[in-house]
Amino acid sequence: MVLNKFYVDELIKRALLEDINYVDVTTDYLIPEDQQGEGRFMAKADGVVCGTQVAARVFELLDSDVQITFLKKDGEKVSYGDDIMRLSGKTAALLKGERTALNLIQHMSAIATAADRYSEIVKGTNASIADTRKTIPGLRPLQKYAVMCGGAKNHRYNLSDAAMLKDNHIDAAGGITAAITKLRSKLGHMTKIEVETRNFDELREALEAGADIIMLDNMSPETMKEAVAITAGRAVLEASGGITEETLRAVAESGVDIISIGALTHSVKAFDISMYIK
Amino acid sequence: MVLNKFYVDELIKRALLEDINYVDVTTDYLIPEDQQGEGRFMAKADGVVCGTQVAARVFELLDSDVQITFLKKDGEKVSYGDDIMRLSGKTAALLKGERTALNLIQHMSAIATAADRYSEIVKGTNASIADTRKTIPGLRPLQKYAVMCGGAKNHRYNLSDAAMLKDNHIDAAGGITAAITKLRSKLGHMTKIEVETRNFDELREALEAGADIIMLDNMSPETMKEAVAITAGRAVLEASGGITEETLRAVAESGVDIISIGALTHSVKAFDISMYIK
Amino acid sequence: MVLNKFYVDELIKRALLEDINYVDVTTDYLIPEDQQGEGRFMAKADGVVCGTQVAARVFELLDSDVQITFLKKDGEKVSYGDDIMRLSGKTAALLKGERTALNLIQHMSAIATAADRYSEIVKGTNASIADTRKTIPGLRPLQKYAVMCGGAKNHRYNLSDAAMLKDNHIDAAGGITAAITKLRSKLGHMTKIEVETRNFDELREALEAGADIIMLDNMSPETMKEAVAITAGRAVLEASGGITEETLRAVAESGVDIISIGALTHSVKAFDISMYIK
Amino acid sequence: MVLNKFYVDELIKRALLEDINYVDVTTDYLIPEDQQGEGRFMAKADGVVCGTQVAARVFELLDSDVQITFLKKDGEKVSYGDDIMRLSGKTAALLKGERTALNLIQHMSAIATAADRYSEIVKGTNASIADTRKTIPGLRPLQKYAVMCGGAKNHRYNLSDAAMLKDNHIDAAGGITAAITKLRSKLGHMTKIEVETRNFDELREALEAGADIIMLDNMSPETMKEAVAITAGRAVLEASGGITEETLRAVAESGVDIISIGALTHSVKAFDISMYIK
Amino acid sequence: MVLNKFYVDELIKRALLEDINYVDVTTDYLIPEDQQGEGRFMAKADGVVCGTQVAARVFELLDSDVQITFLKKDGEKVSYGDDIMRLSGKTAALLKGERTALNLIQHMSAIATAADRYSEIVKGTNASIADTRKTIPGLRPLQKYAVMCGGAKNHRYNLSDAAMLKDNHIDAAGGITAAITKLRSKLGHMTKIEVETRNFDELREALEAGADIIMLDNMSPETMKEAVAITAGRAVLEASGGITEETLRAVAESGVDIISIGALTHSVKAFDISMYIK
Amino acid sequence: MVLNKFYVDELIKRALLEDINYVDVTTDYLIPEDQQGEGRFMAKADGVVCGTQVAARVFELLDSDVQITFLKKDGEKVSYGDDIMRLSGKTAALLKGERTALNLIQHMSAIATAADRYSEIVKGTNASIADTRKTIPGLRPLQKYAVMCGGAKNHRYNLSDAAMLKDNHIDAAGGITAAITKLRSKLGHMTKIEVETRNFDELREALEAGADIIMLDNMSPETMKEAVAITAGRAVLEASGGITEETLRAVAESGVDIISIGALTHSVKAFDISMYIK
Repeated sequence: MVLNKFYVDELIKRALLEDINYVDVTTDYLIPEDQQGEGRFMAKADGVVCGTQVAARVFELLDSDVQITFLKKDGEKVSYGDDIMRLSGKTAALLKGERTALNLIQHMSAIATAADRYSEIVKGTNASIADTRKTIPGLRPLQKYAVMCGGAKNHRYNLSDAAMLKDNHIDAAGGITAAITKLRSKLGHMTKIEVETRNFDELREALEAGADIIMLDNMSPETMKEAVAITAGRAVLEASGGITEETLRAVAESGVDIISIGALTHSVKAFDISMYIK
Repeated sequence: MVLNKFYVDELIKRALLEDINYVDVTTDYLIPEDQQGEGRFMAKADGVVCGTQVAARVFELLDSDVQITFLKKDGEKVSYGDDIMRLSGKTAALLKGERTALNLIQHMSAIATAADRYSEIVKGTNASIADTRKTIPGLRPLQKYAVMCGGAKNHRYNLSDAAMLKDNHIDAAGGITAAITKLRSKLGHMTKIEVETRNFDELREALEAGADIIMLDNMSPETMKEAVAITAGRAVLEASGGITEETLRAVAESGVDIISIGALTHSVKAFDISMYIK
Repeated sequence: MVLNKFYVDELIKRALLEDINYVDVTTDYLIPEDQQGEGRFMAKADGVVCGTQVAARVFELLDSDVQITFLKKDGEKVSYGDDIMRLSGKTAALLKGERTALNLIQHMSAIATAADRYSEIVKGTNASIADTRKTIPGLRPLQKYAVMCGGAKNHRYNLSDAAMLKDNHIDAAGGITAAITKLRSKLGHMTKIEVETRNFDELREALEAGADIIMLDNMSPETMKEAVAITAGRAVLEASGGITEETLRAVAESGVDIISIGALTHSVKAFDISMYIK
Repeated sequence: MVLNKFYVDELIKRALLEDINYVDVTTDYLIPEDQQGEGRFMAKADGVVCGTQVAARVFELLDSDVQITFLKKDGEKVSYGDDIMRLSGKTAALLKGERTALNLIQHMSAIATAADRYSEIVKGTNASIADTRKTIPGLRPLQKYAVMCGGAKNHRYNLSDAAMLKDNHIDAAGGITAAITKLRSKLGHMTKIEVETRNFDELREALEAGADIIMLDNMSPETMKEAVAITAGRAVLEASGGITEETLRAVAESGVDIISIGALTHSVKAFDISMYIK
Repeated sequence: MVLNKFYVDELIKRALLEDINYVDVTTDYLIPEDQQGEGRFMAKADGVVCGTQVAARVFELLDSDVQITFLKKDGEKVSYGDDIMRLSGKTAALLKGERTALNLIQHMSAIATAADRYSEIVKGTNASIADTRKTIPGLRPLQKYAVMCGGAKNHRYNLSDAAMLKDNHIDAAGGITAAITKLRSKLGHMTKIEVETRNFDELREALEAGADIIMLDNMSPETMKEAVAITAGRAVLEASGGITEETLRAVAESGVDIISIGALTHSVKAFDISMYIK
Repeated sequence: MVLNKFYVDELIKRALLEDINYVDVTTDYLIPEDQQGEGRFMAKADGVVCGTQVAARVFELLDSDVQITFLKKDGEKVSYGDDIMRLSGKTAALLKGERTALNLIQHMSAIATAADRYSEIVKGTNASIADTRKTIPGLRPLQKYAVMCGGAKNHRYNLSDAAMLKDNHIDAAGGITAAITKLRSKLGHMTKIEVETRNFDELREALEAGADIIMLDNMSPETMKEAVAITAGRAVLEASGGITEETLRAVAESGVDIISIGALTHSVKAFDISMYIK
């Protein structure tokens, strides 16, 4: 797992403190501390699983002796009825970790499944699907990891690692060219610049000014096709704004390089996975 | 706002550190530090707004002099085009806080709107809508608050504050009656006991044993109606499992007291709100 | 041990940082790092031991190879001279953990012993002893756990998990009935309501309004007996306020269900336990 | 107040999160957010008050506009019925902070009162009262501050800031002289060395070896008097072990310089203070 | 100041807890709490000042009423004897914050001064000076900010925001071309790729494979000049390794774009600034 | 290693989060997760190594199965080309930990080497070298540990564990004698008092008043020699201020006991160590 484990452990501990607080008054009062049990995660839908290591870590943190067998790994397709992982350990730990583990793996699998579905739609075109900064506060690393597991790509992680010029920035600097020039004089050489544009004049100015990426904001597929022609490979083109599953293919066929979709991370429906404990 | 402000401040700081990290290389390098600007949050859909105080707090933490006027408050209905709040402060703070504030208010309003929609559906019946522990790790307090703002009710917050007996607990204790008896001998007098049941035998045993709440797990509305008759007011009845917007009214008309729905917190679609800055 | 281990580990780390700070200038400078030693915890008084797992954890966090044998477990009676646990590990870890471990186990055993003593006093009556929110800030989970180990019960953990109506709440709502009605419309179905009362009028109103628990505040045993008769099982009755070891039996014999005692957690005398290291 | 305010604020936030968790279901649901109220802290016993600033800070953190008037300050004597401070602010904040503020000020005042009582007992002798490291984990700074407010003195804060040689250290080093010599070669020049002794041989060796402070462990007042004579001012003498309020004066009259008492911090009975809110 | 203030506040609180711990036994015991004083920071050397806002924040956190006048701002040149800022506030706060504030401003000014000196040396060439990841753990944001204040540029902040291929990565992937191809298929479109090269073959392969930046590792100025000719503007060239103040100009004249220097952040000599308090 | 491991682990986790953030886009995307590799730390200069355990801990936290062999231990002399430690574990962990481990061990070894060099210079005199509070915020424990490993001594750790009287304190108290008297009445018996003096009058007053340590501030070696004569062993004498490697021997030969040098911790040049991974 390439997720930063310090981040993951902190997240899980916070989640378990939130869910358990003092004591699980049902499990801790009724289940003998040393009773051993078996658990099983099973997919209740078709999609791409993600978060197996994170879910497993929930139980490891509750019972350092738990044994876990992975039958599916992050990014793998699953069908209804597939077993994802099996656990053997303290029954109390299985019961106390169940909800937190499911909350995590269901959310991450939902994102991976959506990323995979969107990627399938654009298959064969030049376009890749990318996420956005429209994430759930505190969960961005998990969500961006799930996007990758689903075969889509990560946009910038945060406001430090790439520049994105919007109206306000452009106005404050006195135009696109002035803004890019000023930024280049300050930015390190490892940092790219993207410019939001809404028409061909802005697009042309951004191209002249040397933007690395140009966002085509809320344009129709036809307009984007023309933008692709104007650009002629001089910058990466990113389509964004108001793109739905229905319009996605048409957008991709316009020839843009990147299609970024906020819904990937802010509007997924939990992917149904059950945990059985005995 | 009744949300615990220490929790909210920690959450926002973590979110801003996640989103900004070192520096906003676009805003911090292009917008003069003392430039003043105006911001406006506008609803782009119809629903129940929630998270206005939380969103406002994002900006207060970035600019202690920001001025905020609330036009809508948490729990209030909004229509497409309604202004929710207006801000006046440092442009850089408005730009740096925008994404985090929107991520929070859109998620919270989505939950409040769903809670309101579900509550409307059951109006006139005996049933109330309740949330579950199927929440986004780290966000449970915000999510439960949004559920209330939407007019639904909170189930238990965590595993400490109420007991819920599942199969595993009942088996370990040797039956429903034994489990409740054992729990009563340990639980404090402020803590309620709920029992999951899947048939009338279990229901009857739970009633006899004095359960405070009985969950009817994955039963049809007809079966539930019969359960209501059997129960005859001796316990609170909670319907749970596989209930959709389509089946909700029928479930409510069965006479149950509570209908708990995980989708309220784990599967909402972000409520569309825009922030305009100038 | 059912104590939430993430909480316990954080507490111990904080305690050890507080006690050691940079370095133990005596032990770290004089005891060879790999010197092995033996430790022994011995009771210097009669009572109920509590905190053995917590004390053991102090040493595990300082020396992951330490071997610990428990001779008594939490909740067990001990007499002067009884060995409680034996440790084998790095001498430096034993010396550096000694004070923190003793501070914890002595405090927890003091509470368990008091809980046991109070419970003995009320034996044979209807009453159970309960703790309060009068705890040492930061230690509530440990203290409530110790109360249980001593055979008494936990009142609510915090202000979220049960409602308790005092004068101010009742006045703001316009009376007991109004307050309970308003609360019921907001509270989830898993949350109980307790009302503080100081006379029979308030008691009767609270009963009528359907309070789950009614606190009899600072009443004499005789008055409480009458209150028990009035209540006739329609609510749980909790005696509170000014109850001492001397008056406890009389209060219990009044027929109340619960007697809550702040002194259990805010005024205990450390239970004497010594640690011998060689 | 000389307490480190970063420490105090963290402690209070942790305490309030512990006590409130999500929401105060009684106060937040019944008291209008902007209702203003008055509060008053009143002593219910005679003693030395301590923790007024800490208690006040609880309310400031809950309501930044609260107005507080101090009638007594830390270290001042109070009698039953004396008002300690008055508050004016949001009723909800007063109600939500009440328990945490009382838990802190009652504990701190208990310690200050005990420190004052012990100091009175030894008045007119050469001896000062000192605390120990037998503190409540996480509260040591508050407790040591309270000891000072009561007129007693602080022993070392932690294991870094002074050395204390016990049997194990002495044995590992090969005797008192060897231990002190080895320590002096490593310790900085700002750090003092204390040696525990149980007889005159050890006392004499410690004196010869140049110990700064010598602890007389569990000696009778008569033996201590002799130890004082032997020492003849060459080191500070600290009496420790098994000293009670009854034996304290006799110990002090032996001529020792310091009498350290664990009970000051590990076994106090909460000092009775009430908060009235209207 | 564009430094993330949440980060700065956390850093300062940690620093003050480290430096003060419980109490400043000199200042807190001798200086009256409400005594007001004046402070002044004065440069004791020539250079570029940095950290004025951070140093000021130390005092604001200790005394929220402190008044501060800035005579120099971050990035400005100062000469021996110049006043940098003046403070007016509680004497105790001035004394307690002095060391922490100086430790921060002296370190940051040292870095800014070095960055300025190096930048002066390369003036008139094509080269910019950049920092590295050779920073002091925990201080990277402050250090990178100081580098910018001195007129040099920031290399990547961390391992997430840009890729840098070393031997091990290239070997694992099966060559430079394979490594870049594999990375491009995974990296988001906002992320640049740099490749370390040690000879012209590697340089040519990296160019062909489309590396954004190519590091010339430990090459002589003459070799670099040839590398510049081979590259012909197809990638950014970064010189790194073994560059000293003496060789810097020659390296810059080779025509490389970036010269990265670890010493900027790992080996600076504190810039002498005094604080006078009266 | 006597460093407090809770402190060390927190520091390393913070450092790794700072350096890795979400994911190492080079290593995590190119190096197979289970690829095993070998690492080796080699000295590239002559000096005293320090931080081996800390550097090792970086890799243990990234890969709990890493095997580490220490060839040198903290405080040991190393020469250019000496291997310091060898590691065997996951290649990805070696690559991701490399920079953080080197940043720590290079800084600590730089301090230890400087401490050793200064100590060599004063060899044969009465003087010891000591550090100061002029440390890098957040790193003081590591830095003070490195000072000891280099054979020098630690001055006070923080403002709690010893008193140091400066002008401001003396003026506020009304003179040296008054200040010491007032402090003695408040300070515990384990705490020493140092007084800063700038001339013989102050020195004599401090001696009379019973200062434990007297700092000779910015005096010439000749003046210090006279101060040593005046003092005649009645207090520890500490030389401080403006002492360089060139003047150090002369200062030491004046007969002072302690020479404290800020440059030990605020101005060291990273000690060159390389890590080779294959």
